[in-house]
Amino acid sequence: MTTARTTIDFDKVGKQIGFVDIPHSPHEDAWGATRIPLAVISHGRGPTVILEAGNHGDEYEGPIALGELIRALDPGEVNGRIIFLPAVNTPAVDAGRRTSPVDGLNLNRTFPGDPAGTITQQISAYVSSVIMPLADAFVDLHSGGSSLNILPSAIIEPAADPDLRRRNIEAVLAFGAPLTVVIDNLGEPRTSTATAVRAGLVTIGTEMAGAGTVSLDALDICRRGVRNVLAHFGVLDAATASPPARPDAILRIPGHDGYVLATAAGVFEPFHPLGARVEAGQEAGRIHNLVDPSRAPEIVRYGASGIVYGRRQPGRVVIGNCCVTVAAPYEGDIT
Amino acid sequence: MTTARTTIDFDKVGKQIGFVDIPHSPHEDAWGATRIPLAVISHGRGPTVILEAGNHGDEYEGPIALGELIRALDPGEVNGRIIFLPAVNTPAVDAGRRTSPVDGLNLNRTFPGDPAGTITQQISAYVSSVIMPLADAFVDLHSGGSSLNILPSAIIEPAADPDLRRRNIEAVLAFGAPLTVVIDNLGEPRTSTATAVRAGLVTIGTEMAGAGTVSLDALDICRRGVRNVLAHFGVLDAATASPPARPDAILRIPGHDGYVLATAAGVFEPFHPLGARVEAGQEAGRIHNLVDPSRAPEIVRYGASGIVYGRRQPGRVVIGNCCVTVAAPYEGDIT
Amino acid sequence: MTTARTTIDFDKVGKQIGFVDIPHSPHEDAWGATRIPLAVISHGRGPTVILEAGNHGDEYEGPIALGELIRALDPGEVNGRIIFLPAVNTPAVDAGRRTSPVDGLNLNRTFPGDPAGTITQQISAYVSSVIMPLADAFVDLHSGGSSLNILPSAIIEPAADPDLRRRNIEAVLAFGAPLTVVIDNLGEPRTSTATAVRAGLVTIGTEMAGAGTVSLDALDICRRGVRNVLAHFGVLDAATASPPARPDAILRIPGHDGYVLATAAGVFEPFHPLGARVEAGQEAGRIHNLVDPSRAPEIVRYGASGIVYGRRQPGRVVIGNCCVTVAAPYEGDIT
Amino acid sequence: MTTARTTIDFDKVGKQIGFVDIPHSPHEDAWGATRIPLAVISHGRGPTVILEAGNHGDEYEGPIALGELIRALDPGEVNGRIIFLPAVNTPAVDAGRRTSPVDGLNLNRTFPGDPAGTITQQISAYVSSVIMPLADAFVDLHSGGSSLNILPSAIIEPAADPDLRRRNIEAVLAFGAPLTVVIDNLGEPRTSTATAVRAGLVTIGTEMAGAGTVSLDALDICRRGVRNVLAHFGVLDAATASPPARPDAILRIPGHDGYVLATAAGVFEPFHPLGARVEAGQEAGRIHNLVDPSRAPEIVRYGASGIVYGRRQPGRVVIGNCCVTVAAPYEGDIT
Amino acid sequence: MTTARTTIDFDKVGKQIGFVDIPHSPHEDAWGATRIPLAVISHGRGPTVILEAGNHGDEYEGPIALGELIRALDPGEVNGRIIFLPAVNTPAVDAGRRTSPVDGLNLNRTFPGDPAGTITQQISAYVSSVIMPLADAFVDLHSGGSSLNILPSAIIEPAADPDLRRRNIEAVLAFGAPLTVVIDNLGEPRTSTATAVRAGLVTIGTEMAGAGTVSLDALDICRRGVRNVLAHFGVLDAATASPPARPDAILRIPGHDGYVLATAAGVFEPFHPLGARVEAGQEAGRIHNLVDPSRAPEIVRYGASGIVYGRRQPGRVVIGNCCVTVAAPYEGDIT
Amino acid sequence: MTTARTTIDFDKVGKQIGFVDIPHSPHEDAWGATRIPLAVISHGRGPTVILEAGNHGDEYEGPIALGELIRALDPGEVNGRIIFLPAVNTPAVDAGRRTSPVDGLNLNRTFPGDPAGTITQQISAYVSSVIMPLADAFVDLHSGGSSLNILPSAIIEPAADPDLRRRNIEAVLAFGAPLTVVIDNLGEPRTSTATAVRAGLVTIGTEMAGAGTVSLDALDICRRGVRNVLAHFGVLDAATASPPARPDAILRIPGHDGYVLATAAGVFEPFHPLGARVEAGQEAGRIHNLVDPSRAPEIVRYGASGIVYGRRQPGRVVIGNCCVTVAAPYEGDIT
Repeated sequence: MTTARTTIDFDKVGKQIGFVDIPHSPHEDAWGATRIPLAVISHGRGPTVILEAGNHGDEYEGPIALGELIRALDPGEVNGRIIFLPAVNTPAVDAGRRTSPVDGLNLNRTFPGDPAGTITQQISAYVSSVIMPLADAFVDLHSGGSSLNILPSAIIEPAADPDLRRRNIEAVLAFGAPLTVVIDNLGEPRTSTATAVRAGLVTIGTEMAGAGTVSLDALDICRRGVRNVLAHFGVLDAATASPPARPDAILRIPGHDGYVLATAAGVFEPFHPLGARVEAGQEAGRIHNLVDPSRAPEIVRYGASGIVYGRRQPGRVVIGNCCVTVAAPYEGDIT
Repeated sequence: MTTARTTIDFDKVGKQIGFVDIPHSPHEDAWGATRIPLAVISHGRGPTVILEAGNHGDEYEGPIALGELIRALDPGEVNGRIIFLPAVNTPAVDAGRRTSPVDGLNLNRTFPGDPAGTITQQISAYVSSVIMPLADAFVDLHSGGSSLNILPSAIIEPAADPDLRRRNIEAVLAFGAPLTVVIDNLGEPRTSTATAVRAGLVTIGTEMAGAGTVSLDALDICRRGVRNVLAHFGVLDAATASPPARPDAILRIPGHDGYVLATAAGVFEPFHPLGARVEAGQEAGRIHNLVDPSRAPEIVRYGASGIVYGRRQPGRVVIGNCCVTVAAPYEGDIT
Repeated sequence: MTTARTTIDFDKVGKQIGFVDIPHSPHEDAWGATRIPLAVISHGRGPTVILEAGNHGDEYEGPIALGELIRALDPGEVNGRIIFLPAVNTPAVDAGRRTSPVDGLNLNRTFPGDPAGTITQQISAYVSSVIMPLADAFVDLHSGGSSLNILPSAIIEPAADPDLRRRNIEAVLAFGAPLTVVIDNLGEPRTSTATAVRAGLVTIGTEMAGAGTVSLDALDICRRGVRNVLAHFGVLDAATASPPARPDAILRIPGHDGYVLATAAGVFEPFHPLGARVEAGQEAGRIHNLVDPSRAPEIVRYGASGIVYGRRQPGRVVIGNCCVTVAAPYEGDIT
Repeated sequence: MTTARTTIDFDKVGKQIGFVDIPHSPHEDAWGATRIPLAVISHGRGPTVILEAGNHGDEYEGPIALGELIRALDPGEVNGRIIFLPAVNTPAVDAGRRTSPVDGLNLNRTFPGDPAGTITQQISAYVSSVIMPLADAFVDLHSGGSSLNILPSAIIEPAADPDLRRRNIEAVLAFGAPLTVVIDNLGEPRTSTATAVRAGLVTIGTEMAGAGTVSLDALDICRRGVRNVLAHFGVLDAATASPPARPDAILRIPGHDGYVLATAAGVFEPFHPLGARVEAGQEAGRIHNLVDPSRAPEIVRYGASGIVYGRRQPGRVVIGNCCVTVAAPYEGDIT
Repeated sequence: MTTARTTIDFDKVGKQIGFVDIPHSPHEDAWGATRIPLAVISHGRGPTVILEAGNHGDEYEGPIALGELIRALDPGEVNGRIIFLPAVNTPAVDAGRRTSPVDGLNLNRTFPGDPAGTITQQISAYVSSVIMPLADAFVDLHSGGSSLNILPSAIIEPAADPDLRRRNIEAVLAFGAPLTVVIDNLGEPRTSTATAVRAGLVTIGTEMAGAGTVSLDALDICRRGVRNVLAHFGVLDAATASPPARPDAILRIPGHDGYVLATAAGVFEPFHPLGARVEAGQEAGRIHNLVDPSRAPEIVRYGASGIVYGRRQPGRVVIGNCCVTVAAPYEGDIT
Repeated sequence: MTTARTTIDFDKVGKQIGFVDIPHSPHEDAWGATRIPLAVISHGRGPTVILEAGNHGDEYEGPIALGELIRALDPGEVNGRIIFLPAVNTPAVDAGRRTSPVDGLNLNRTFPGDPAGTITQQISAYVSSVIMPLADAFVDLHSGGSSLNILPSAIIEPAADPDLRRRNIEAVLAFGAPLTVVIDNLGEPRTSTATAVRAGLVTIGTEMAGAGTVSLDALDICRRGVRNVLAHFGVLDAATASPPARPDAILRIPGHDGYVLATAAGVFEPFHPLGARVEAGQEAGRIHNLVDPSRAPEIVRYGASGIVYGRRQPGRVVIGNCCVTVAAPYEGDIT
């Protein structure tokens, strides 16, 4: 059951730019729809690749790069089919918020979705049940977002199947990011990439800086990476691609120990810049109580050794906020 | 008329850490007070210097540096009196917001304040009418805040009186920031520094990075700068101070032309990093409409030549938002 | 499982006016209830008809007409049983909002409901599982609501069963509205009328003007229509009824093409009044960007031919808002 | 003192479309501005006329008509100068709200404004102190707004000076609205028209339907009226103007008695359409308690005789809401 | 200047119950009014007494007692004139909030008000400039409100004039409360009672329990006290009055030291019940950090000796909240 | 499936104070967690008892008493294992709200929870599926909360199994509260105690005063009761326990009739104090319309005979709010 519709014909050759309209009936608009931008460029006999961005609405490099590509790409350059969802959580993108202002949900915790649920659940249901079955590969472009500043990296979503795992790693390395990191979100199954892997699609993720802003460097990495991946799948001409990242650079988030969480409310002062090498047990920073200068700050410590991979952007923290994330070398099988 | 009180005795020698209590009677607390942290360290015969931070509640280097100094300084090191207001707009600091969550006001647009006004107006009235008359010099420590990322700099508030202007410039240079910039906020008279200058105090401002986070580099500049200024006034031992900044580095914001304002809602992509040299008329960046990829982005252009001094942090903009700020060479008299 | 209760005895003869109390335990009231007004007038041996209004809380003709009828009707006039739910989404009615202020839900997208869900889901569960099983027919009185202004009409909810379809159409025509329209809400199964049809009840809907206000004309149509329907079922004396609407007047919403959706944010200027005949492809209106008069407005076009059946009331639109709805002739079987 | 600036040169011949930028420093944007659209078309030697709309942000005919005129008018058609403020309370227009979302203020209760006040007070100060001194006449285009539906009419703001009063009446009649009404807002001095009259400008107001929507009829009246007024002042060619309204049609709001206020919370059902003749003491409508159908509605009555001039749009009322407004014949001197 | 009006004729003999309508023009209601209930009972030649309640909207004994008196009193029982303002801050009373939901203001910090200000400022202006000049005496009935639980008491507002001071004390003692307390709100001049004293009216205040609820005992004290005071002024028959309170029971709030303010956020556990005798320096209670049980609570201490006069009702506190208030013996002249 | 983790080792002997971290990914904190305080004290061979408080965030005696016990208890005093969840709905406790500010849910209407649901549903899932299986007994410490003031009592959750029912009653009586009441929340299965009973745990509840404040008396009852219960289970030394409550004191809430619900909006004036004996049909209080003193208050009546067990704290009511709760003698089997 779905009441959504799109004027895009997925089987048509050429470039189409349009929308998916998901009927939505709030107080402000009884008979309208939430419009999700959608584009398809189809030509030749190659595979189908989904390029998704705007899963979180405050991560900007992906949506910018995909919008440019939609407008710039000539169908004749394509061998196969590219399905673009450049601002998939449209209400969140329009608001510049990680989560949807409509129902408060984080789209990336709602997969595979529910066609009878709230708007965000209907979006994930549409992606899972209508878009994913059309494709061979899935690219989900994230940045750190408003609350995190992250070293630009391509992300491997773990796969149980060894063959899919190998193909995922090859595709992620093809992206050509400065870093490659295995992230499983502590085993979280409700993400789009976990869902794509379960559906058997070759899956590539990214984390591009963030901090709620547009990074010139990360935008450049993202633009090139998307073309590299399309070339990797043969959908764009391989001649235009950069060489893939080197496989010895793979890191992973070492579970809960990789996250330094705030132990009190206050303002977090970090002790190390992104990329610094740190040790488990070492002081990671301190939390200041600015409204009472007679109180000394509290120290927080790293729970794992590795490099400082991400850092909280807003100075203000409450208990449980992630202050710093550490990435450690990945010791799994990458071949 | 004021109903505020402090348990601090401004005439007492030694270190006192306490509060100003301004009675406040909202729904949640009929008979309580807004507590503004206040500390005084007094010893010897030197001048009185006010160190203010937290004028905006999302600018963190100043409050952190002053809190450390309050806790660390031994009265015997002091020759004169230091009055610390490390989180002067306390409700805003507690919320990590530029403006007060209590009445929505920007403290730095309320000076000289009103003792019968809202809480923010009462805070500025207290600073203007109780604290400033006690002092010879006034230091107001700002950072860029949540919405701006700025090159760390010490700020000169213009003074009509040539002698005060000269003394302000000397003191600002003594701070030792990488840049020195004349900022008059387009002639805005409602700031604390404009009010301090009108009151005849030697006045120093700062802008320390910002972006809503704590910058390790800017925090270090701020820590040293505060001590340098106190040494400049003879309140701390000059031996501990760094050499002052070189006077040929002075810039200014060239009025309205220095601000590149958004011409449409969307996400701003900047074309140049902070510190880049740019020309009036040159493209400064573009504004993307992410929810409709069929629309090309809009170009915005610089209105003045100089260096990229500040940049908006949140990618999301609405019409009128300041995307970029340019600083040009200051051509006034600095001696 | 339900913790709801009513003091109404559904089997008792005469008039009872009371409430359903659904226990609700928010911050403001740990041990209270949401009270849903409920009335029953029972006498003689005729069928049971549910009269529901206030499904959306900003649609006023239905609740007013039912309240009057509850107060005015003498049990002796009744042959059968009328169950009145005149303000079924009581929190929404009390707020004058389409959706519930308690949980944000649109009651008419929650059927058949969930007795362990939020308050709105508990209301629909009560109607579906307690009230509907008692009845032979179901009347759901809607108006356009705050966001829509609609030509007053009686609504046919499609039924798969031919016999039920025929009986629905007869009953809807008996209502005697100026227009009769088949509306399936794009196949939406979560409405009260779709649920009533699935439960085998003869089902009648309405749309009465709207625009967030009380229409004198529509109120008159609604008052007469309710009595006409009750006479149709033999519950009131047929002598008091108006003649039914003529069956050649039946229209339908032609799917997604019947809805003209906003393509940009701004203020919508319609080009035709309600009732005008329009063609697919014709200009329907334009969307003005009022904050930048240098920009020309955007044209939106009809997607189907027919008459202008409904129009957005608030001038302000965002992308996806329904600006105009077109109704086309119904070509299905109505006998 | 003002920190506002515009790039418009009021003395330049030709058409200029731009903005007034009023610096505004909230949490979201430390160094940006509120941009108020402004256009000037200047040619020849005639008088200067200010055309203002968007004083309230949910009144749409004026802003649409002025935007069209700005884009359509060739400077060569103009004899004199037209200063357009088509969306003067820009934050309110952008939000589609009567009052500003920034500071909650009704611009038309803030004149003559305060350059050191909140944004709305700064806007009124700019209009009063920068724009009005440039002009000979002032036109302020209102509609009923979200809460009122009004018979389209041109409005006379009373003037103490007999000569100005006469010239105001002539200009208002020249507008050519179906009705002409004297409205003094119960003596309210804080409106833009009262301020314009005090400044000696010939002053014309309007009320154009409203109900929060765009009325096709009212938009047509407004488009013609603006051109008629410009022709009246000789700024446009008189040949293009319609004949003025007939002077025997002047009405007035008879003070407090003209307003029927709600006596209880509930939903208001009116008894008469706009334009109906009614008598003081007659029943005007009733207020229904929809959440308790056992309670009879409350009757409200007219306080003055005349015609039903305006009616509340939202059905939901609370105590004190204006349900209906009556206009009575104006018995003052109109020559 | 005022645009307010009332249908009450202050010079008419008998009982009138009506409203003051203050025009108010927010988004929701362009032409309506804020209705302030007002009643006058006038008969014979005695003095005029204002009975005000609902100054804060969450203090209920006063409004209940005045409403009863308005309905119950026969004009023939009155010798003089009673002007009732039983819910003077009507928007706050309707919301059950200390402060107005319309503009966020505490009415009792806005006197003498401003007829061109916000609604709350207009209410205080009406009371100060229209009602107070009509009267000889002013009674302002407060309770503790949502945030405070207070020992029921009659309140003396200090007066500079010895004769007025004496008459105030006599009138307050006539009220007959269990306690009598001198409260100057730390010198606050913006209260209604301070304004009444400046206007030369004999002035009586109260504090009746509070805690956001209706106290049976306090309601009884309040009912009798109001009649006692009217008898004291000769407006009601002295035979119905209780004997006055004994003058040796007078207390005072000993300035800032009387208020124990929270030093941290958490939940306050008091150590003593209301009425307990306590000493300056003694532990008053402690503040628990419930979200981290490893942290010990913080102790707060009394700043003055006396009895526990009031206590914060909500357990949750933030820095600066008033946890406990102590009243000490009044040592001033009470004759 | 759960992504939660704790550093507590449930099998380790001694005292551990820590947290459960449940990953939560809202806009403000992409990679952080909601931290739920958790402590375990384990020693010897006795049973495992869960002590839960803060199920509702505005009920303070339980969290305070458990925090003290965590800090005070020496492992050597323990024979068995105590698992403390002193602030189980941490976001609600931190906000001082009954319900979670994160998702608006009442934790005690979400059991057994959902590990893929919102944060509150994840908390209940963790308690149900991770903590409860470790234990023999479950104690859930409630107070009345912000909206209710209740006679301090220990609560029996009904159990279908006679043996468990007997053991529950013995354990509840061991708590030693002044009153013992059977409460089934009208059959509500979604509470923690109903879930614990279904899981076969011996289950004890409490209601301790409330009114949103900390009651000295109730805190003392709670402190002793917790130790009594632990002694009852042999986890603490029986010598330290008080004698159990007498079994003839058992009451019950007599279903819907036990709750007096508001029939109109206004301010509720109760007629009887807590503990008074009342009869079904007797007047319970009245609801005042404070904004219109011409209207008489409405009477509400008791629906059952018994004692006044609880009373609404906030004076302000809307329709359906629980004004008073009556407890009647329990006539079931208690042996």
